[in-house]
Amino acid sequence: MTVAHSDFDIDTAVEAVGDNHFRAVLSDRWNARHGVVNGGYMLAVCLRAIARTLPFADPLTVSAHYLRPGSPGEAAAETEAVRLGRRIATGQARLCQGDVEIVRATASFADLDAEGETARFDEPPALPPPEECVPLEAPPPGATIAERVDYRYPTPPGWQSGHPRGQPHAAFWMRLADGRAPDPLSLALLTDAAAPAVLEIGARGSSTIELTAHLRARPEPGWLACRASTRHVINGYHEEDFEIWDSGGRLVAQARQLARLS
Amino acid sequence: MTVAHSDFDIDTAVEAVGDNHFRAVLSDRWNARHGVVNGGYMLAVCLRAIARTLPFADPLTVSAHYLRPGSPGEAAAETEAVRLGRRIATGQARLCQGDVEIVRATASFADLDAEGETARFDEPPALPPPEECVPLEAPPPGATIAERVDYRYPTPPGWQSGHPRGQPHAAFWMRLADGRAPDPLSLALLTDAAAPAVLEIGARGSSTIELTAHLRARPEPGWLACRASTRHVINGYHEEDFEIWDSGGRLVAQARQLARLS
Repeated sequence: MTVAHSDFDIDTAVEAVGDNHFRAVLSDRWNARHGVVNGGYMLAVCLRAIARTLPFADPLTVSAHYLRPGSPGEAAAETEAVRLGRRIATGQARLCQGDVEIVRATASFADLDAEGETARFDEPPALPPPEECVPLEAPPPGATIAERVDYRYPTPPGWQSGHPRGQPHAAFWMRLADGRAPDPLSLALLTDAAAPAVLEIGARGSSTIELTAHLRARPEPGWLACRASTRHVINGYHEEDFEIWDSGGRLVAQARQLARLS
Repeated sequence: MTVAHSDFDIDTAVEAVGDNHFRAVLSDRWNARHGVVNGGYMLAVCLRAIARTLPFADPLTVSAHYLRPGSPGEAAAETEAVRLGRRIATGQARLCQGDVEIVRATASFADLDAEGETARFDEPPALPPPEECVPLEAPPPGATIAERVDYRYPTPPGWQSGHPRGQPHAAFWMRLADGRAPDPLSLALLTDAAAPAVLEIGARGSSTIELTAHLRARPEPGWLACRASTRHVINGYHEEDFEIWDSGGRLVAQARQLARLS
């Protein structure tokens, strides 16, 4: 399903205002909590700007370092074409608000339709169909992103009712709420759009320091099966691994972030 | 064990030649194959330069985009202090040879001894003791890195004798061959110092596009237990996950790279 004016496309649009300079407006519709913009959304804005700087349309891998929290409002992206190769092009974006850099993202773009050897050694999460799953009933306060993204859990998350399950793993469905079909750009947002797995061990929240997402294939339309897990909380820092599988049962994105418990 | 003049420390040294400008010499002692410098070694050189630019000594997370192969010889690192925070500082290095950029690395540094919440949900690989394991007998041609790093496998890798096992997973021991004790900097090198797991599915080799390493704790001296695995080869691209556990059985580094089959 194609949506003519999707929230995602409107809110991640960037406007060229000079060579490698783009203007963006960080919307308040993708907040992770009161007044704080979601990191996956800022990543997608960075990728929009980098895409305008490179000859390929598809992000293949992106690494972002989160320097300061982003606030809804005006932003600027300065981009650089780092290396233009025959098969892969690499660019960088500095996302700034009021002359202060908030995210630095480096991304390599390619053509995801170029064919090559394929071999799979893993399976998508085993989930009941979305219509047998339950939506998120109590998103974190101020998390407007939960109005833009639909979640379907096999059973209600323990953290939602104040009873974390004790294991920092989760599997669930996600899609953009307005029906916009997924693509590699929106997958980049979705790798950081769900409640962190550490909520199930009693964490109140978590701030991303670094996130790397690999966009591995063009997704088919429909619900996305997701798997989130943390295995190591060490001195207040934890990784979160995130996988997204499309409606055809193929892995389409995998991400890992290093974050700090708040 | 401390080694006064370890190969690693000598070969990753950088010399300041100006503000945020460093001179390095890429040694031919860490080649991945004939004339091509190992990516983990270049990552460590970048981290040495970034460390000189930031107020913290310990790399916590680093993302590197590999733009062109590195050759033994003169190199220059240009660094930038991106953000100096109270607890975390972020910097960037551009590693160049002859005015051509070969690696761009962005790293956040911190104090790895700062204490905080710790919870572990995974176990180190189950390996026989190193003295019951076998060394690598036939490293890839020209791979001088195999003279700098000791490997001990529970059983000889299948790819070594031309009989790949069909599963892109491996667990083995590693350490620097001259006995230098591991630290977060040398762990960064070691996350990309072993034969790629895809050799066990018949791949001839693989070139890193992006590598992110999280250095999670200061390692104890001794052998390091390592786990390498690939789960998704898609259109010629594959991820490789790499974990390093210290002699005390604690996870000390985890890395993922996106690479292309060669």
